[in-house]
Amino acid sequence: MRATMLYSPRDICVEQIPDPEISADHEAIVRVLAACVCGSDLWPYRGIGNNPDGPRQIGHEFIGVVERVGAAVGDIGVGDFVIAPFLYSCGVCVHCLNGVTPSCVNGGGYEGCQAELVKVPQADGTLYVLPAEPAESQYADLLALSDVFPTGHHAAICARVSAGGIAVVVGDGAVGLSGVLAAKRLGAANIIAMSRHESRAELARSFGATHVVADRGKAGAQAVKDILGGIGADAVLECVGTAESMKQAFLSLRPGGFVGYVGVPHDVDLNVPIMFAKNMGLMGGIAPVRAYLDELVPEVLAGTLRPGAVFDQTLPLAEAAAAYQAMDERRAIKVMLRP
Amino acid sequence: MRATMLYSPRDICVEQIPDPEISADHEAIVRVLAACVCGSDLWPYRGIGNNPDGPRQIGHEFIGVVERVGAAVGDIGVGDFVIAPFLYSCGVCVHCLNGVTPSCVNGGGYEGCQAELVKVPQADGTLYVLPAEPAESQYADLLALSDVFPTGHHAAICARVSAGGIAVVVGDGAVGLSGVLAAKRLGAANIIAMSRHESRAELARSFGATHVVADRGKAGAQAVKDILGGIGADAVLECVGTAESMKQAFLSLRPGGFVGYVGVPHDVDLNVPIMFAKNMGLMGGIAPVRAYLDELVPEVLAGTLRPGAVFDQTLPLAEAAAAYQAMDERRAIKVMLRP
Repeated sequence: MRATMLYSPRDICVEQIPDPEISADHEAIVRVLAACVCGSDLWPYRGIGNNPDGPRQIGHEFIGVVERVGAAVGDIGVGDFVIAPFLYSCGVCVHCLNGVTPSCVNGGGYEGCQAELVKVPQADGTLYVLPAEPAESQYADLLALSDVFPTGHHAAICARVSAGGIAVVVGDGAVGLSGVLAAKRLGAANIIAMSRHESRAELARSFGATHVVADRGKAGAQAVKDILGGIGADAVLECVGTAESMKQAFLSLRPGGFVGYVGVPHDVDLNVPIMFAKNMGLMGGIAPVRAYLDELVPEVLAGTLRPGAVFDQTLPLAEAAAAYQAMDERRAIKVMLRP
Repeated sequence: MRATMLYSPRDICVEQIPDPEISADHEAIVRVLAACVCGSDLWPYRGIGNNPDGPRQIGHEFIGVVERVGAAVGDIGVGDFVIAPFLYSCGVCVHCLNGVTPSCVNGGGYEGCQAELVKVPQADGTLYVLPAEPAESQYADLLALSDVFPTGHHAAICARVSAGGIAVVVGDGAVGLSGVLAAKRLGAANIIAMSRHESRAELARSFGATHVVADRGKAGAQAVKDILGGIGADAVLECVGTAESMKQAFLSLRPGGFVGYVGVPHDVDLNVPIMFAKNMGLMGGIAPVRAYLDELVPEVLAGTLRPGAVFDQTLPLAEAAAAYQAMDERRAIKVMLRP
């Protein structure tokens, strides 16, 4: 099959590798209909963090159709159209039952999903079967459910966005924009998106942002408070993961509020005495996508939830390198790849 | 009046000082029926942290009877029996309305409550009026509502203790023990108290602890997990405030759970990547005592909630120095002072 391979920072290409094979009874092989590039793929692409030596496969979001199943797979059948959460999970361990699927004791990550085929361990627990073959016009919205939208939703849930409340979203990447939509879906009355890119600000507005603040840091937090009559927001969604973005998040929060964070933290450190003095909470982490799908998929299928607008570009899988480049240079918000 | 004065670390005494006077219309003067020593009073007593030069008054918990009121005080009258939350708050600003009374824009701390008289600013917003003169046998339970029990309750609320859930309490001081009782009140099915002092462990058991773990640090967390079949607790109440206690709290927590913390943090730093990877939340801070009283006082008056058992010693106000010494040496859990 063809698969996207990362050799070293910024050296990425699509090449022929052996097809994945079922090696355990609980696995399935899925043929990818659509995959995409995640903001978190850009970290290794840029050479930031501890990355294994390449070449290695990359990508973790996809929708597809089941091609083969292992002997122990019971709920998933050949020909099923499925959404794959970006981590696999068994669905029956204590953490899965607690709704914390990223901590599944039998879970983990795929070998790489920007490819033609993907091996999915724990297929029964992992894959969400669609009731029918989706129309191609639904691919973007459904693909967004494999990671980006549930991650924004996780930020909103962790920040305890509530109906009638005030939410601020730090980060105008695809996750931050999804966070705006998630806050809107949860009924926030005011949603302040922090963005200095007009095309992203526009998408934020179409997702429900009532205000856009271009300033950052202390000035950005002050602009938020100016909008809110001097008081911080009830809920802040931190969707970047840097020290500055986390600082900005807490500066924008009111006493008693929560920062919900989903940006993988890089050198973040927290001012615990201030958090304590102001009763500011912090919750977040790797989104339990699988746990959220039962609630989210029906709304997407009904057309009442349209998270796919974060995909502003579609390329054939063969052009994965161009997709990375466009996202690296912020020319694209999120790129869909079609094998 | 007589008041407890801290001159310098471990130099504390009761002496005659001028009576407080009403200097603003929203103030009241309350005659103290019972006061007490808080674990947080021990920090300046021990000379830890940034403390102003003495002599200065100390103490922030009391119940009493209103002696005089300013011209603007409307809800509180002379002769009312009152519980004083350990901070004053106006009750009408945005933060009070949000239930975050410690962030009240008109709020603050008293001049010192281990005394015969206390000036209470923002009397209408602050003081909780009891329906009748309490019996002396109720003083301990009512005095516990001015700080220690609502603080333990705050830890339990912030940790999201739920009916049928599993809670761990780190810290066997009066707040930690109150946290055990609060977790029990909220319906936790299993409550593991971490204590190595038999008298405190016994009180923890009487408050509802189902298990007591004497080990600390990694060994303590392992003992917790051994009790819980290898998985951490749903909720951990951190009631100490040191780097080690916070570490132990997170080590005892399951993925997706919350640490609720109420120990004033001293040099605490957090492992954010681990918190993120395991979706572990942190919430807590200065307890909004006033916001909790409407719910808690009726239960105390009905006798169904008995938080006063944390007072294992009562001394006359004149012996405040002995009270500090007993708590400093951990010979007493919490000492009541009677003017």
